[in-house]
Amino acid sequence: MANTLLVDLADHPGLAVSLSAALAVPLAEVEQRSFPDGESYLRYLTPLDGRDVVLLCSLDRPDVKIAPLLFAAGAAREQGARSVGLVAPYLAYMRQDKQFNTGEAVTSVHFAALLSAWVDWMVTVDPHLHRRHSLSEIYTVPATVVHAAPLLAAWIGANIEKPFLIGPDNESRQWVASVASRAHCPFTVLEKMRHGDRDVSVSVPQLAQWRDRTPVLVDDIISSGHTMQEALAHLRGTGSVAPACVAVHGLFAEDAFTRLQQAGATRIVTTNSVAHQSNAMDLAPMLADAMREHVG
Amino acid sequence: MANTLLVDLADHPGLAVSLSAALAVPLAEVEQRSFPDGESYLRYLTPLDGRDVVLLCSLDRPDVKIAPLLFAAGAAREQGARSVGLVAPYLAYMRQDKQFNTGEAVTSVHFAALLSAWVDWMVTVDPHLHRRHSLSEIYTVPATVVHAAPLLAAWIGANIEKPFLIGPDNESRQWVASVASRAHCPFTVLEKMRHGDRDVSVSVPQLAQWRDRTPVLVDDIISSGHTMQEALAHLRGTGSVAPACVAVHGLFAEDAFTRLQQAGATRIVTTNSVAHQSNAMDLAPMLADAMREHVG
Repeated sequence: MANTLLVDLADHPGLAVSLSAALAVPLAEVEQRSFPDGESYLRYLTPLDGRDVVLLCSLDRPDVKIAPLLFAAGAAREQGARSVGLVAPYLAYMRQDKQFNTGEAVTSVHFAALLSAWVDWMVTVDPHLHRRHSLSEIYTVPATVVHAAPLLAAWIGANIEKPFLIGPDNESRQWVASVASRAHCPFTVLEKMRHGDRDVSVSVPQLAQWRDRTPVLVDDIISSGHTMQEALAHLRGTGSVAPACVAVHGLFAEDAFTRLQQAGATRIVTTNSVAHQSNAMDLAPMLADAMREHVG
Repeated sequence: MANTLLVDLADHPGLAVSLSAALAVPLAEVEQRSFPDGESYLRYLTPLDGRDVVLLCSLDRPDVKIAPLLFAAGAAREQGARSVGLVAPYLAYMRQDKQFNTGEAVTSVHFAALLSAWVDWMVTVDPHLHRRHSLSEIYTVPATVVHAAPLLAAWIGANIEKPFLIGPDNESRQWVASVASRAHCPFTVLEKMRHGDRDVSVSVPQLAQWRDRTPVLVDDIISSGHTMQEALAHLRGTGSVAPACVAVHGLFAEDAFTRLQQAGATRIVTTNSVAHQSNAMDLAPMLADAMREHVG
């Protein structure tokens, strides 16, 4: 990677510095700002000629990041970069992967086409693949997926005494099982009960047999946090040990973080895929390994 | 245009309704919103199959509009649109048209490449062409430019008694001359005097001989409004008749509108290229003519 240059596009020095160290590659100096009329400005202060440029840009709150990201990619190429890759630890627009209603824009397809046209390769972490099996169904550039389960398992093993993992739903069973097996602890998944169109409650099956253990709610993304909040409320009612929340991606839309704290989570921890005060697990070593598939 | 469908993407019903009437084409019903995590949602409620779809989306404050615009274009194509055009009365990213400093992203080139990849043709109004002669130097799709000078001249002729036009700088002389000749009135351009690096004052040459006339400051764009504000302050000092401000595009970054009012502008009027309370000139008839070059 002697020829590689890392660019921290989304102001996430926590991850950028760590990744730069893990790869032993320098961080480019970049000047970025917005003009009063809402246009973006970007200037590379480091020469890019002949370099493999890697743009680090997590795509939470994606819309405002698109212009700067594409400009950074286009400018890198114009300034002589040999290749332009994207490390987006959180990848946006994975949820609308089909028309749930006639006329809907299938944004996951269009977003994939957009990024594929501007970068040469991509690395991301646990994208929200629902109805798709692989990113290659929509991304036409080589894309490597990092699985953060081992990182979550290691953190839980090192920080939670006698953990008992609780996954959000049956769909996540396999993923929760893999975290639990690495953390050498039991697990279950939430049961959702629908009482009406908007009235959903959750319960934790088999809670009684693990009463002496610390419940750890695990999920790939905390976005609105509503499912975790429901589960926390339910656990509080059962008099269980104070629970923790562990997730790969902490988006914490609106006041989700505060709501989870108020609902009784003793600890809320995430990887540094999205910059947030809850970041406690460093993705840099795993991202570095994945990047080695794309830059020599 | 029997087959054409107009889509108001940027919530500008003033122009959309007027344009729909001028063309005698229907407005599509579209549902647009943002999810709490910052992703955009778009749904066409009108069938697009076999239609020529025209996206109306002025590109002031452009960055947040890019994702919805590209999704709208991609979805229209996916849903069977025969063609997808863009009417962007205000076109963004025209200013950074070269590297003023080493390493700068030449955003006008990258933005042009982006739009050109997603739409089949474009119509815009008086784009800020500085060092370029034509949009076709950077836009690879057919682009028609509407010149609003006749509209400004007509408004001034109908609303200002004995006008005397004042343009912002020597570069604008030709454009101001064309507005003045149509409005049958005299004109001049501002003289800027530089007293230091940041100390610039402006004056209006030949003001004395037009003391009985109403000064009308004209410009293509009001963005920060600083030049107009300086000119207004200068005019106030000379005891001239209360001046008006007339522009094609009213961006009014930050508090520019209030500042111009406070600086003594009796009237501030713009075309409806960007939705704003100052809109007093309707571009719809001219846009309709330009669109007829692209859809049959």
